[in-house]
Amino acid sequence: MKFIAEINVMPLKALLDPQGKAVTMTLNNNGYNDIQNVRIGKYITLEIEADSKEKAMERVNEACAKMLHNPIMEGYDYQLYEEK
Amino acid sequence: MKFIAEINVMPLKALLDPQGKAVTMTLNNNGYNDIQNVRIGKYITLEIEADSKEKAMERVNEACAKMLHNPIMEGYDYQLYEEK
Repeated sequence: MKFIAEINVMPLKALLDPQGKAVTMTLNNNGYNDIQNVRIGKYITLEIEADSKEKAMERVNEACAKMLHNPIMEGYDYQLYEEK
Repeated sequence: MKFIAEINVMPLKALLDPQGKAVTMTLNNNGYNDIQNVRIGKYITLEIEADSKEKAMERVNEACAKMLHNPIMEGYDYQLYEEK
């Protein structure tokens, strides 16, 4: 079975996000004063082949933990659904 | 009213995504042969102050269209919900 995973990787809340700060300022300086607290992370999609949804989730979780995020600076969450 | 927007910005399907290709290869070379077709975009969250959900959506859409994505190379979608 083939599954699609959608993963969000975000800088941890406790850390400064300089890229987000810069975008907030740029928006504010260009007429978007109603927008605050922009934070920028990564959105990752991937296809995974597995026997069951549980196995696929386990593998995606492992890949996120080991390869796709930096636990010192980032957190992640993901959604998984079967490809039709 | 304060709303939170969650925005996904992705490279267009028709375009190569070299960063995603590199991550796919790295995963495959490290025991994740079951993962294919990784694509990497941006995940942006922001807070917006507006009188109604419709107004907030309009503003976020405008900010995405004008400032947060590059229409030549990227597409975007977003979700909006009220902050409690």
